[in-house]
Amino acid sequence: MQQKPVLHTVLSPKLLDLYDISNSIVVIIDVFRATSTIATALYNGASRVIPVAEVDKCIEIGNRIGGITAGERDGKVIEGLAHGNSPAEYPRSFIEGKSLVLTTTNGTKLLHMALKNGASEIITGSFPNLSAVCNHLLAANKNVILGCSAWKDRINIEDALFAGAVISQIKDAFTIHCDSSLMAEDLYQLHQNDLYQFIRKTTHWHRLAAFGLEKDLEYCVTANAANVLPIYRNGDLVIA
Amino acid sequence: MQQKPVLHTVLSPKLLDLYDISNSIVVIIDVFRATSTIATALYNGASRVIPVAEVDKCIEIGNRIGGITAGERDGKVIEGLAHGNSPAEYPRSFIEGKSLVLTTTNGTKLLHMALKNGASEIITGSFPNLSAVCNHLLAANKNVILGCSAWKDRINIEDALFAGAVISQIKDAFTIHCDSSLMAEDLYQLHQNDLYQFIRKTTHWHRLAAFGLEKDLEYCVTANAANVLPIYRNGDLVIA
Repeated sequence: MQQKPVLHTVLSPKLLDLYDISNSIVVIIDVFRATSTIATALYNGASRVIPVAEVDKCIEIGNRIGGITAGERDGKVIEGLAHGNSPAEYPRSFIEGKSLVLTTTNGTKLLHMALKNGASEIITGSFPNLSAVCNHLLAANKNVILGCSAWKDRINIEDALFAGAVISQIKDAFTIHCDSSLMAEDLYQLHQNDLYQFIRKTTHWHRLAAFGLEKDLEYCVTANAANVLPIYRNGDLVIA
Repeated sequence: MQQKPVLHTVLSPKLLDLYDISNSIVVIIDVFRATSTIATALYNGASRVIPVAEVDKCIEIGNRIGGITAGERDGKVIEGLAHGNSPAEYPRSFIEGKSLVLTTTNGTKLLHMALKNGASEIITGSFPNLSAVCNHLLAANKNVILGCSAWKDRINIEDALFAGAVISQIKDAFTIHCDSSLMAEDLYQLHQNDLYQFIRKTTHWHRLAAFGLEKDLEYCVTANAANVLPIYRNGDLVIA
């Protein structure tokens, strides 16, 4: 009998080092809002999304390649950048054929950790591209790390919820001896039918809703609205 | 209006540094089985429990004070020590009036981290002393960290469940802006009526049940069987 590949959920970047990821696909999850925006921009025709940690680097790359620079702190576009973090800012009429240079803190940090730790493949996941992620993981038949970006390393519910959504769809194909995965799946099972209400209880909701982003956050927990698979290749996220 | 104290749940020792604990009561949680055994030994009349990380130190202290040395690795009593980690090994007829020198890895590590980070008070929590912990936290009216010992820094369900049990009893008296706490409470609410079944799904169950410890593990999720409050004072855990 063929052995099933192994799946683990990592609820904070601080816990990534506890796992050997060298033979794994790592799914970077940053539901509010980086990975939701990445899926949406690519779905709407962006040629690539370049994730960067620092604002200076974002501006430098944007200038060099003629890309759209984007990033927010505290709900406002960062000085020197052109756009924000909202998926709603990237309709096809605007983003098609362009490169988006996106500064994020939590998601980009985890992505770079996964690179450094030798992940064999890095993709990004969010509710808008839930099915694309699940289908890819089922087809690949490799070990999986569901990597939650969290918020300044503190565990957050929205990323755990997405991990749970993935697990509930693909668990039969994996060996899962991982309490974080069981917790994430339970959380998703419990709240899958009241996601819009449930996310109002999260700390991130309170942080972002103050900036009038309720519609944005609801979009970010809506499944399959931008169902493409972003994969990391040589510094760019592109459609696989 | 008086401000409520703040409560956070820390699901792995690796995440403790993210929180300022200097003005907080830290509850050390190691459900399978260190903190369950600590509560039980003190409830049954042990004069104190001395938690130590290393086996050598356990033997040295045991010899010096004439205490009972205890510790297990992989379900067996460690060579050179006299007893194991099971709460069932410490009935009143055996432990009353004695000092128990207990080596544990996960729980002791977290306790020493909490000491180093300047916790204002350290107590231990487990289902057998659930009410004692809740009553103390309500009366103290101070900030609280529910600190899960986890397993080699990997998050585990049984410690999160106990955090959730505490939160569900005391949440009205605290400000809780903490997704880990919300997750822990949801998990407990979902499984409070099937705890004996649910713990069979945890990774730790599979690790320990192989050594015939099912009854032990069921005891460790039974509320208020040893309802005392262990508090850390000058190297010893004693009844508060």
